[in-house]
Amino acid sequence: MNKLSRMLARKFVLAKPFEGLPKLTDFNIIEETIPTELQDGEILAKAEWWTVDPYMRLRSVANMKIGDQFTGGQVARVIKSRCAEFPEGSQVVGYFGWRDFTIYKPVPGGPRMYSSIQKMPEMKGLPDSYALGCMGMPGNTAYHGLLDICQPKSSETLVVSAAAGAVGSLVGQIGKIKGCKVIGFAGDDDKVNWLTNELGFDLAFNYKKVKLDETFKNYVPQKIDCYFDNVGGEFIYHVVQNMNEFGRISQCGSISAYNAQRKPGELPLVPFDYPLFRFNQMKLEGFNVRRWANNWFDGINAIRDWILEGKIKVRESVTEGFENIPQAFIDLLEGKNTGKQVIKATN
Amino acid sequence: MNKLSRMLARKFVLAKPFEGLPKLTDFNIIEETIPTELQDGEILAKAEWWTVDPYMRLRSVANMKIGDQFTGGQVARVIKSRCAEFPEGSQVVGYFGWRDFTIYKPVPGGPRMYSSIQKMPEMKGLPDSYALGCMGMPGNTAYHGLLDICQPKSSETLVVSAAAGAVGSLVGQIGKIKGCKVIGFAGDDDKVNWLTNELGFDLAFNYKKVKLDETFKNYVPQKIDCYFDNVGGEFIYHVVQNMNEFGRISQCGSISAYNAQRKPGELPLVPFDYPLFRFNQMKLEGFNVRRWANNWFDGINAIRDWILEGKIKVRESVTEGFENIPQAFIDLLEGKNTGKQVIKATN
Repeated sequence: MNKLSRMLARKFVLAKPFEGLPKLTDFNIIEETIPTELQDGEILAKAEWWTVDPYMRLRSVANMKIGDQFTGGQVARVIKSRCAEFPEGSQVVGYFGWRDFTIYKPVPGGPRMYSSIQKMPEMKGLPDSYALGCMGMPGNTAYHGLLDICQPKSSETLVVSAAAGAVGSLVGQIGKIKGCKVIGFAGDDDKVNWLTNELGFDLAFNYKKVKLDETFKNYVPQKIDCYFDNVGGEFIYHVVQNMNEFGRISQCGSISAYNAQRKPGELPLVPFDYPLFRFNQMKLEGFNVRRWANNWFDGINAIRDWILEGKIKVRESVTEGFENIPQAFIDLLEGKNTGKQVIKATN
Repeated sequence: MNKLSRMLARKFVLAKPFEGLPKLTDFNIIEETIPTELQDGEILAKAEWWTVDPYMRLRSVANMKIGDQFTGGQVARVIKSRCAEFPEGSQVVGYFGWRDFTIYKPVPGGPRMYSSIQKMPEMKGLPDSYALGCMGMPGNTAYHGLLDICQPKSSETLVVSAAAGAVGSLVGQIGKIKGCKVIGFAGDDDKVNWLTNELGFDLAFNYKKVKLDETFKNYVPQKIDCYFDNVGGEFIYHVVQNMNEFGRISQCGSISAYNAQRKPGELPLVPFDYPLFRFNQMKLEGFNVRRWANNWFDGINAIRDWILEGKIKVRESVTEGFENIPQAFIDLLEGKNTGKQVIKATN
């Protein structure tokens, strides 16, 4: 191989294990050379959009060593291909991680979902970045996590936490489409206003300014039937105190616990009212969106059509430039984004 | 009415609100006179068997005032009747409470289950007291709470806490009938031996002598699929740490919390690992056996037939005499019983 047959790629690796909220110094950019001559079945892809999502904080704690590349999805353009399924010039959604150029060999007949590689959804004119948000993993998380786990019925009351985030904002709007009374909680007043004024939530509150139990007692006298949980911890406790019999909690995330530090052997203490939970025959179910890999495009296409019909509104927080992925990730964990946080490639 | 048309009945009432474990001085026997001339539709019943169950501890905290009679089921003999459905001489299972003689008017067409009145199940020669245990509310609790909530599959691993109790001992045996590997936890060595030597549990442990997490790691390398929970609290935490993906927890009781005292405004802190619960897509569901009121005898008859076929063994802890109900209740809460705790009327 001569010099011309190789090129430079950049990637982010873990520089230092996170302690609490990640810091910029925990991330390193590394350059690596990759061949430009492809093997049979391979593609060379150039990232156009990256996504950062809360689950990455959890995964990084569990599985990453120093020097490991950060994982995650991209919308990428195939710039060279020896794989008929993903031809040159096409776009893919690839789980290539925080890097710009990628050589990837799709497993023939292998899984085609957010955590491997898939063709772009049929966007029908909607922005490409949606394939990482409302028409990607977060979209399906909202769709199936609400409809299959909570199974909300018309006129039931649905509470959503982290309601201005990529998933929560969809959950609330799908709840409205299904005839629920929807109550959202978010972390600042602008987000709260967005939920009620633009997204059609019946009520929304800034959880930093209100007492949860009081708020439920004053504003939700009919009590809660479904809770879509993105935060865990004390929030669930207060929901349980104000839930109807046969209440269902769909546990999507627990962002309140992701940055928590514990000493070895220390158990994560949270309030939980087991006797009441049993008395009212409640259900708490955790889920991973992989569960719906076999009907991956059902939710995505449904959300797309609701967007095209004007029933769902989407907002994105866009950061520009590969080098700013870590900052976008930190902003996300601090709740600075409204809607889906994505990063646009600038070169 | 002359003197002869009235008689004395005895009942237990709350003398003092419980603090922690109830004490004998928290209970009072009160005599009351009741008419012996019945109104149309009424029956006069004489208790033959009483039951004490853990849920009574919880209910007493929530709903009882000083002077209120303790509630609960009886097997009683109808000694006078003006109600064709429950004729003189027949036996009933009546929710008459801790009292000896009762005048009761069954609601025509009303509910016929453990918390109102029902005819005796078809006992096929089994002891009458079983109608308060394996062929009554605890039996249905085990049957439906395991089969409908956990939905165990053959060759899955089932863990049962309070496994030597009325419910737990049935749950484990039904698990074996369904092909599960069954692991029980109880509070003393005799109970543990009973579970493995007589009831066919695959493994059993004295939870007071072992560390749960270590025990699961050493003896349950295949991990847990179903957990039938009678205790709540830290036990659930350790199960969750050692559970397979899609693990199901059927939450029947939380006896560990019933005697807990908290200051006003203090939240009940327990360890709960929300991130792991979600990661492994687990489910926790509380239930009340009333849920199966419409097919109340399905479970009862199934258990009866398994007993007659020798597939289920039953043990009772029998206390004699009305006046000893409170002590039997305290013993139950202290875990002194093996199998179902019942009280036999002696006069």
